[in-house]
This record gives sequence, C-alpha cells and structure tokens, in this order.
Amino acid sequence: MSFERVAIIGLGLLGGSIGLAVRECLPGVATTGYDADPATRARAAERGLVGQVCDDPADAVRNADLVILCVPVGAMGAAARAIAPYLTQGVLVSDVGSSKQTVAAALAEALPGVAVIPAHPVAGTERSGADAGFASLFRHRWCIITPPAGADPGQLASLSTFWEALGAEVEIMDARHHDMVLAVTSHLPHLIAYTIVGTASDLEGVTESEVIKYSAGGFRDFTRIAASDPTMWRDVFLTNKDAVLEMLQRFTEDLTALQRAIRVGDGAQLFDHFERTRAIRRSIIEEGQDDARPDFGRSDHGS
Amino acid sequence: MSFERVAIIGLGLLGGSIGLAVRECLPGVATTGYDADPATRARAAERGLVGQVCDDPADAVRNADLVILCVPVGAMGAAARAIAPYLTQGVLVSDVGSSKQTVAAALAEALPGVAVIPAHPVAGTERSGADAGFASLFRHRWCIITPPAGADPGQLASLSTFWEALGAEVEIMDARHHDMVLAVTSHLPHLIAYTIVGTASDLEGVTESEVIKYSAGGFRDFTRIAASDPTMWRDVFLTNKDAVLEMLQRFTEDLTALQRAIRVGDGAQLFDHFERTRAIRRSIIEEGQDDARPDFGRSDHGS
Repeated sequence: MSFERVAIIGLGLLGGSIGLAVRECLPGVATTGYDADPATRARAAERGLVGQVCDDPADAVRNADLVILCVPVGAMGAAARAIAPYLTQGVLVSDVGSSKQTVAAALAEALPGVAVIPAHPVAGTERSGADAGFASLFRHRWCIITPPAGADPGQLASLSTFWEALGAEVEIMDARHHDMVLAVTSHLPHLIAYTIVGTASDLEGVTESEVIKYSAGGFRDFTRIAASDPTMWRDVFLTNKDAVLEMLQRFTEDLTALQRAIRVGDGAQLFDHFERTRAIRRSIIEEGQDDARPDFGRSDHGS
Repeated sequence: MSFERVAIIGLGLLGGSIGLAVRECLPGVATTGYDADPATRARAAERGLVGQVCDDPADAVRNADLVILCVPVGAMGAAARAIAPYLTQGVLVSDVGSSKQTVAAALAEALPGVAVIPAHPVAGTERSGADAGFASLFRHRWCIITPPAGADPGQLASLSTFWEALGAEVEIMDARHHDMVLAVTSHLPHLIAYTIVGTASDLEGVTESEVIKYSAGGFRDFTRIAASDPTMWRDVFLTNKDAVLEMLQRFTEDLTALQRAIRVGDGAQLFDHFERTRAIRRSIIEEGQDDARPDFGRSDHGS
C-alpha cells in the first residue's frame, strides 16, 4: 500500500519542501495544502508547493490518505483538532516536529481512533516561510519515525517508504530516546547559539558593529542557527523541557571544568579536550552529514 | 617605504597563506620561511609557500626587512628569542596571534631595541599545517593592528599597506580592546564549541554514532571550529585569560536566564530572545562576513 493523496498542513520550510519533493520524486501522488496565514497560502500557490492550496483545512484533508502536520510543535494539538472531523476512514496522520513525546500525546488526544505515527526529518536550514522550501531538503538526511505502541506495521512501512522516496534514510526509534538524542544534536546547540548571539549584542565594552565586523573569527558560525524561526524553537524548548535541561546541566558542568582549567592555567587539560573533539568532525564529514570543504566552502575561501 | 624581503616564521595555515598571498599580490617581494617541524618545511618547499624555505631561523630572517611570527601565541617569546641575534638593522617584527597584550609583552621582552608592531588578521579555517594555507585567506577580512605606544608611524603605515595589498581591510586598535573584542567574537565561540562537542561525545544514553548521524539538526555547525588546532587554542585561552573569563561569566548568566525560562515555561521570554538574534545574522551577511546562501551553501542543499 502506498499513499495517493497527501495533505500538508503548514506550508513553511518543511511543509513546502515535502510538497516540492513529492512533485519531483513521486509524480503520481496528488498533494493538497493549507496554511493558517493567507499570505503564505498565496505564496505557496504561486510557487506550486502543493497541487492545490486550500483556504480551509477541511478541504485539504478531506480525501487524503496521508496527512502531515508541519506546524510548530506547540500548535500540533490545535491543528489536529481543526482537521479531526474531516479526516477520511483509514487515513494516517503524521508530522515533522522536532520533539516527539509531547507531540505524540497531543495528537493522540486530539485524534481519538485515528492512526497516528509521528516522524521527524532531521533536516532544515535557517530560513523559514513559504519561500524557504526546496525539493532536495531531505536528500541524504535521516528521518526518524517514532511509532506509538500498537502502530499498524503496514502503515509504518508505507510511511517509511514515503520518506525514502523523498531521499531520506529512515530510522525507527522510541519517542523518548528521540527526544534525548535531539536534545543534544539539535536543541542544545540552538539554545547555546541563541544565547551567545544575545550575549554578544548586549556588551557595553564592545559595540555590535565590532561583533559583526570581526565575526569571521568564529562567532558567525553560531549566527546561522540563531537565525532560525523563533516560534518553532520556543515550542521545541517548552515541549522537550526535561531532556534539554538534562543536557544543559551536563554542558554547564563541562564548561565549568574548562573555565577552571583556564583560570588555573592548566594547559594540558585544555589541550587534551581540544584534541579529542577533532575526531567527531572527521566522522561527520565521512558520514556525509556536513561539507568537507574548509570554512564550509564559503565563497570567499577561493581555491 | 615598503617591504622588499619578508621572513615568515611558522608555515602553517596563517604563515603559508601569507607566503602564497605575497607571491600572488606582491610579486616583487622576496619571501623566506622557517618552521620548527622538518616535515612542515619539506611540504612548504613542495608547495612553494615561500620563495626559500630555510633549515635555520637565522637564515630566514638575516636579510628580511619584515619578519612575521606565525606560531602559536604561547611560542612567540621563544620564536623571537631564537631570531633576535640575527635581525637586521631597521627590521620590523610583527605577528598574527589571536591575543595581543600578552604577545606584545613577550615580544618586547625578547626583542629589546627592535621595532615591534603586533597584528592579527581575523581570518582562518578549521584546517592547520603546511597544506592548509591559500592565497585568498585574507581577502575581505579584517586585519587588526595593535601598535604599542611610540610605534613608528612610517612602519605602521608600511605594515597597513602590506596587509591591504594581501586583500585585507586594516583597523588600528588598542591591544586591550582587541583582546576584549576577540574574546567575544572568536575565543568564547571556540571554547563553547569545544565544550559542546565534548559533552555530546561523553553521554552514556546517546551513542557517538547517533550524535554523528543526526548532527544536521544543528550540532555539526559547532564541530567545524571545534576541529581547529589544539595547540593554538590552548595558548589563546591561557594568554587572554581575563577577557575570556569575563565573557564566559556573561554568557553563563544569559544561559542561566534562558534555562530558567525553559524550566518555568516562559515562552514569551524565549520568543523575545530568539527574535532579536536574527538581526545580527542579517548584518553579518550584509557586511560580507558570511555566506548568505541557506545552510552555508552546503552542497546537499541543491537548488
């Protein structure tokens, strides 16, 4: 069994990219879409993010056999309640949210009796909105599917096949483990990037213009993810609170240890720490999860 | 007055890039070079990083009118002492170190009676060694020159002209202010990146292989600068201790405030913070200090 009519609720970076990827990779599949923002709907129609942009979520989901909620995780419950009465028999509802335990609970509550299998494609850029999506976003990226207990194996297989068709590699994972893994690989990095960019702009001894001018010393790398969508990230931290606070505690302990090494002048401890972090970068590049070119291949790099 | 014979002590990323940039941008200028590591000297000769690679630092500096020390900041004093007896009358000694007050003091002590004007080109990649350098490293990047009190205006002008010829924009700054500005734009980001990469690799509940697989969620951006040269960075933190500890204290306070907002569920505070960090990214891109393409233009981004 494979899906024939996919409805996408929320037409930002993720929703738009799914629509474009389906058109490119699954040309036989029909897509409908809805976004709460009329300007986003208009732009989505112009860009052809989905086959049909609907002004009412009911129309978007009415004939769909797969509905994917692509809204901030804090809005999942409301989005599910809005479509609940209009879902067709046998439909599968999924999502793309970055935290999975809270979303699973919200969807189960809003959609009693409906098949729900949450998912999270680990892909994105710092852009958001109807202009941000592109068809190759999921290529060579992982999509983590977190089926609840008792999920239908056939529907799980169909959802996996769907994501693989868009270019992703699929991993099945427990929602609780997902939330811990993503807390360290995504949520904590975003929180820290948001923090340091804020710290830098609040200094009285160093002007913001100096921070900007000399950002090539390292700071600029943090600003990319600190430019991500504020609503999405507010919701991620509020819905994955326990795992984020746990990782933050560990990070703070490690930072305090390095701070102490600097204060007492323990060069050996600093060197040992800095030496072993190189290996991880090498592995990330070998696995194809980052660009091997020095400096991220920034255009000023020359050749 | 302009320089005719430039000696480069240390032939890694910075030293090698200066040599290549001089060859490209100042073809009339002769370059000599020395590195303490014989393998680096051999590779530097193969790549032609300088006109003549010397096996003895004395030979490299003997006829130079500009000597640039491109060694880790903790090794500046020793490198200066090694060349001191062989410097020619009227020579200017400079460097490329990332902390300036300590280096200025070390060079003044090692080179009594010699003209010293420290400098810091704010440019680099995560690569190090004789293979890392390239001629365009300094193009559109800032070079901060921190002349000591009483520096000769003619020599300062010559040094500025030299860096401008390599493509850099020059800023004159007090060494103390430099160290504070770089603590926030470069040293703190590196320390935090090194910390989080270490934290992620020490978890017992999440495997290192999971951290690598799902690094596209944000973590990978931190690994680039955490792959930088460990010796160089150990020395930076030990020599710019006061400014780094000051910035670290502010960062920790800001992180604690966001941690508290997550714990108590204060979504408004999180949103407000995340909203204002977007503007800085925009300014950095407008100033040409980073790549505007989404996702740093990573090759998987497609179009």
